[in-house]
Amino acid sequence: MNVAVIGGSQCSQKAYSVAERLGELLAQEGWTVVCGGKSGVMEAVCKGAQEKGGRTVGILPEKDCSGANAFVEVKLPTGIGYARNVFVVRSAEHVIAIDGEYGTLSEIAFALSEGKTVYGIDTWDIEGVIHVPTPEDAIAAIQAQSKT
Amino acid sequence: MNVAVIGGSQCSQKAYSVAERLGELLAQEGWTVVCGGKSGVMEAVCKGAQEKGGRTVGILPEKDCSGANAFVEVKLPTGIGYARNVFVVRSAEHVIAIDGEYGTLSEIAFALSEGKTVYGIDTWDIEGVIHVPTPEDAIAAIQAQSKT
Amino acid sequence: MNVAVIGGSQCSQKAYSVAERLGELLAQEGWTVVCGGKSGVMEAVCKGAQEKGGRTVGILPEKDCSGANAFVEVKLPTGIGYARNVFVVRSAEHVIAIDGEYGTLSEIAFALSEGKTVYGIDTWDIEGVIHVPTPEDAIAAIQAQSKT
Amino acid sequence: MNVAVIGGSQCSQKAYSVAERLGELLAQEGWTVVCGGKSGVMEAVCKGAQEKGGRTVGILPEKDCSGANAFVEVKLPTGIGYARNVFVVRSAEHVIAIDGEYGTLSEIAFALSEGKTVYGIDTWDIEGVIHVPTPEDAIAAIQAQSKT
Repeated sequence: MNVAVIGGSQCSQKAYSVAERLGELLAQEGWTVVCGGKSGVMEAVCKGAQEKGGRTVGILPEKDCSGANAFVEVKLPTGIGYARNVFVVRSAEHVIAIDGEYGTLSEIAFALSEGKTVYGIDTWDIEGVIHVPTPEDAIAAIQAQSKT
Repeated sequence: MNVAVIGGSQCSQKAYSVAERLGELLAQEGWTVVCGGKSGVMEAVCKGAQEKGGRTVGILPEKDCSGANAFVEVKLPTGIGYARNVFVVRSAEHVIAIDGEYGTLSEIAFALSEGKTVYGIDTWDIEGVIHVPTPEDAIAAIQAQSKT
Repeated sequence: MNVAVIGGSQCSQKAYSVAERLGELLAQEGWTVVCGGKSGVMEAVCKGAQEKGGRTVGILPEKDCSGANAFVEVKLPTGIGYARNVFVVRSAEHVIAIDGEYGTLSEIAFALSEGKTVYGIDTWDIEGVIHVPTPEDAIAAIQAQSKT
Repeated sequence: MNVAVIGGSQCSQKAYSVAERLGELLAQEGWTVVCGGKSGVMEAVCKGAQEKGGRTVGILPEKDCSGANAFVEVKLPTGIGYARNVFVVRSAEHVIAIDGEYGTLSEIAFALSEGKTVYGIDTWDIEGVIHVPTPEDAIAAIQAQSKT
């Protein structure tokens, strides 16, 4: 199962730690991390996942892989810039947002418009986002949702 | 010059009237209305523009034109669903949002992430959106921006 | 009705003349020309159409309109490079290919894979393309097809 | 490194065997197979790769994973139909075509228009495609190209 993790390419140290921890947990569940493949939150979640042997996918805005963070295992260049955001969302059953700027907001909104559940940790306060305090809570919420 | 007008496929009568008035004004400026081609705000802005002889373009989610509103002159099917939102935004120099739900929010955020100015009338209260009270104010703001 | 006209951005004088004549005829039918908005065949068909008061749409590879030919009325930047080829094809009920290189071939093949009829004038000799000698024949063939 | 393997969703037993063997070889090189994720050649190359412990990615036309073949490890739904072909090509440094119909031809042509080398085994006879008789030759050609 794919889980999209979205968040800004620039982030606070706190958000980085949260994302890294989330990556570890996703890997332990055996879930694949799909993200935009860049720095910040995307790097952190890939780093955490890779440390636990998890699978990481980066859907890149550029035409080549040179801008990918060091922890993306499967690098997918698209050459369509930030329009690739819609494909990050489309690729996953569940979406978790951490922190983030306008790009993240576009992904949150697109996910909600497609009827996907979005879990948020310290991110945009948009109606419809299920805010959770920790990565552990996000995992628990997805587990509960997957059972129904 | 293209102006993207974004807003929900379902809207209040008030939003419909505002969008229709905006369409009239855009047509009078000689600007092309680009939208998602569906009902609600999209229909209203096309209706207003067409009544004043303006040009209207609808970038459609479906593979055919059957779902376009009656006032779209240039119908462009895409077959990519709501992912077409990114192309509505990409096609225009300026973006005006009226009312709207998640789809509109995704377009607002995507436009801001691409560095485009977004004018908003009774829409999502997102930092970065320049809120204007009336269609006339939106036109004036774009005119002022285009001069700089 | 939209007719996509596809062909290379560099073309012979003969292909240019054919495309220009095709543009005139499409305009006289009241059909909208959709193309990639660039030079060569795309420029010629827009030129012909515009001279007869027809409507021309250019789906551009770039993020802005600066690379459009002078005869595109509705300019739609996409920022996705040649991946925009699929949207040129998706936007039209009928496809006419003139001359062309690999980009044109990709559009021919994509159109055929989507079940669309492709008429060809001095273009790639691919099984499934209906080759016609002149623009007049292409128009006649589309008229015949539209009646069925 | 990603290698895109393209070919029809329906194929002969011979093409299936060739694709399966190619998958084995790609896996042994440590290269990731990217494909359209469906049946026929796509299934065969994933099967071969997975049997040798290789990584397989399927960029799917649908919005969900239900249509993926059984040997795709990383399933990426797109919801854009065959327009996903351009992303299969964009994602890879090298492209190998086996057999195939119009979809495959669109990918071959798109790859060539993007300046990518296409190796072909019993596929469309298009100028620019480097035809090789066996999967082993395709691997050798990519190795030679990667060294330059």
